Amino acid sequence: MRFASRLESMGSTVVKETLKLTTTPGLISFAGGMPSADVFPVAEIKRAVCAVLDECPTTALQYGATNGWAPLREKIAARQRSQGIDCTADDVYMISGSQQALDLAGKVFLDPDDVVLCEDPTYLAVLPALGAYQATFVPVATDDCGMVPDDLERKIEANNPRVKLIYVIPTFQNPTGRTWSVERRRALLDIASRHDLPIIEDDPYGELRLEGTRVPSLKSMDSDGRVIYLGSFSKILSPGIRLGWMCASPDLLEKLGGAKQSADLQASTFTQLMVDRYLADNDLDASIARMCDVYRGRRDLMMAAMEREFPKGTTWTHPQGGLFIWVTLPEGADTAKTIERAVERGVAFIPGVVFFANADRKNCLRLNFSNATDEQIETGIKLIGEVLREG
Amino acid sequence: MRFASRLESMGSTVVKETLKLTTTPGLISFAGGMPSADVFPVAEIKRAVCAVLDECPTTALQYGATNGWAPLREKIAARQRSQGIDCTADDVYMISGSQQALDLAGKVFLDPDDVVLCEDPTYLAVLPALGAYQATFVPVATDDCGMVPDDLERKIEANNPRVKLIYVIPTFQNPTGRTWSVERRRALLDIASRHDLPIIEDDPYGELRLEGTRVPSLKSMDSDGRVIYLGSFSKILSPGIRLGWMCASPDLLEKLGGAKQSADLQASTFTQLMVDRYLADNDLDASIARMCDVYRGRRDLMMAAMEREFPKGTTWTHPQGGLFIWVTLPEGADTAKTIERAVERGVAFIPGVVFFANADRKNCLRLNFSNATDEQIETGIKLIGEVLREG
Repeated sequence: MRFASRLESMGSTVVKETLKLTTTPGLISFAGGMPSADVFPVAEIKRAVCAVLDECPTTALQYGATNGWAPLREKIAARQRSQGIDCTADDVYMISGSQQALDLAGKVFLDPDDVVLCEDPTYLAVLPALGAYQATFVPVATDDCGMVPDDLERKIEANNPRVKLIYVIPTFQNPTGRTWSVERRRALLDIASRHDLPIIEDDPYGELRLEGTRVPSLKSMDSDGRVIYLGSFSKILSPGIRLGWMCASPDLLEKLGGAKQSADLQASTFTQLMVDRYLADNDLDASIARMCDVYRGRRDLMMAAMEREFPKGTTWTHPQGGLFIWVTLPEGADTAKTIERAVERGVAFIPGVVFFANADRKNCLRLNFSNATDEQIETGIKLIGEVLREG
Repeated sequence: MRFASRLESMGSTVVKETLKLTTTPGLISFAGGMPSADVFPVAEIKRAVCAVLDECPTTALQYGATNGWAPLREKIAARQRSQGIDCTADDVYMISGSQQALDLAGKVFLDPDDVVLCEDPTYLAVLPALGAYQATFVPVATDDCGMVPDDLERKIEANNPRVKLIYVIPTFQNPTGRTWSVERRRALLDIASRHDLPIIEDDPYGELRLEGTRVPSLKSMDSDGRVIYLGSFSKILSPGIRLGWMCASPDLLEKLGGAKQSADLQASTFTQLMVDRYLADNDLDASIARMCDVYRGRRDLMMAAMEREFPKGTTWTHPQGGLFIWVTLPEGADTAKTIERAVERGVAFIPGVVFFANADRKNCLRLNFSNATDEQIETGIKLIGEVLREG
């Protein structure tokens, strides 16, 4: 049998082997990006699903509209309006988790060799998702405040007319935990507008603010409909239900929705009605606040332990929210080797190299703080400290 | 903004406009392909989801394995073994509805202008799904027994080396309701084997047998691992939960699974655990048998009404199962026009033209018998009969 030529751009064996290492059973793992199962509102979800199955079972179990359950889209739109995004239910399109939007955007925007501009480092799983459409990734220099505008401009000019899409996670970024300043957000929108480029704003973590003041989303500052905002219930309710949404202008949603329909017809009616009922009967903000209390404690504990255990010359970000801390070791370190020794000691993280589109920086690693107990954090960071001190 | 060139092959406006017509509110509709909501096992599903949320909520609501929940895959494999398919849980890969496999297969197999061979007519939604990968569809002559082997062979030879994939629905086909003979299945496997081509066997209706004896699936006769079998819970349990599976050889599942992971990470853990529990505690075969009793009654009622109401010169298939009857009007009829008058009278079907890859046959239509009451069937068929008699 013969396969598509795109298979070559769909995933590196190195990444797969690395990630397999971090899922060895019995490890203390700071590797994944999972929310803590301790904070799922189980009783409330059970009440919601029972109410749906008592009151409208035939709707919940039947096929539904491709763009999603209207009452849920209305609730999401209302929530987004309260966050400064000018939108209605018609601007919201339900999908099977926000990862799906990356695939849909690839399908709608990219021909082979088209260029996608991304942060450096960026979300690991955007690489195979858009790689499947044979995209060329061009990373833009990124510092603590976001993409560096001059470098963004330079990369667009150097790669035009092949530049088709800009992909960013401006709030509590994965993997770095960094948040873009308002100025950098404005600069990005200006530059994208000047070159008429669409922007994907991936925002799975934005509501998990542990400290500091809210920074407006790109979508809330988007005056000409070029931002495709991706929201997700994975980190604020449950990832197991596979429910996310896109918020974008009608002409973009029509194209993305066509791709959605042929990809899997629709998001689950059943989980959509359940979440709709959950939102009607519960205070999601209060639930997120409880979640943030837990995560803040774990972040603080981890950062205190790192302060104590990590060798001199090691630096790390101070995330104001989200799930991740990004650690930089001295030049010359190679965390793809460090991880092997760490796993032998019983602890896992993700070597930074897998988050770089051009895989050239070896001295970084990502730690997840949301899904480990206090004891695991203390023990695990101590073990990583030992491994790092051994060089 | 600039879009991908594939957008042109992703869906015709004619199809969209036609389908919109058939969803006018208040119609008696034989247009959709929905199971009847009357037969969903609501109480059993509620017991299953409550048990899951009582006993393993943190597993159900968390991320899970990309290939799916192992106990569910084991139950599906056992069920398939009882149907003559030699497989284990490792050969089963859970997806977000079986439609998703069409997208994944397109991604894994197709470069632009590659040829997909399909039945004539074929499943409407395979056209945009594989069209997104810029496939060229070449329909193979198909009669009451399946694809005509000589024509299949001829089409392969005429289009090689661009032929990459064969897509078929051999049992209770959509839209015709026809079932391939064993001999034709064997011939297809022989020809595919000789040309080393993969076959997608789409089988959402196979378990809905209303009469006659079971014909073995292609997968059960597949001695060299070239059949990608697609199963679905949509027609035997609930389409709203969006759960299907692929059964294929490990090397094919590895490639298709890579595409699945970047498309949407995984199928819903929540609905997988719910279905797993449902299968553990209930007799799915007995539930399907009850479903078939209802559908058999509706099919018989519809065919009796057609016999009475449809004008001479109109012929139709006699489906032994599934959801659809395929009607052929005299040459010269144009059901894309008939549908407009039918909708004015208050009844909908789907004009046959949308099911042809090369859109050249105008005198056919598809009727769905599963999702209408007895009274709707009597009234609706009478109305269609009137419209047809008017010519």
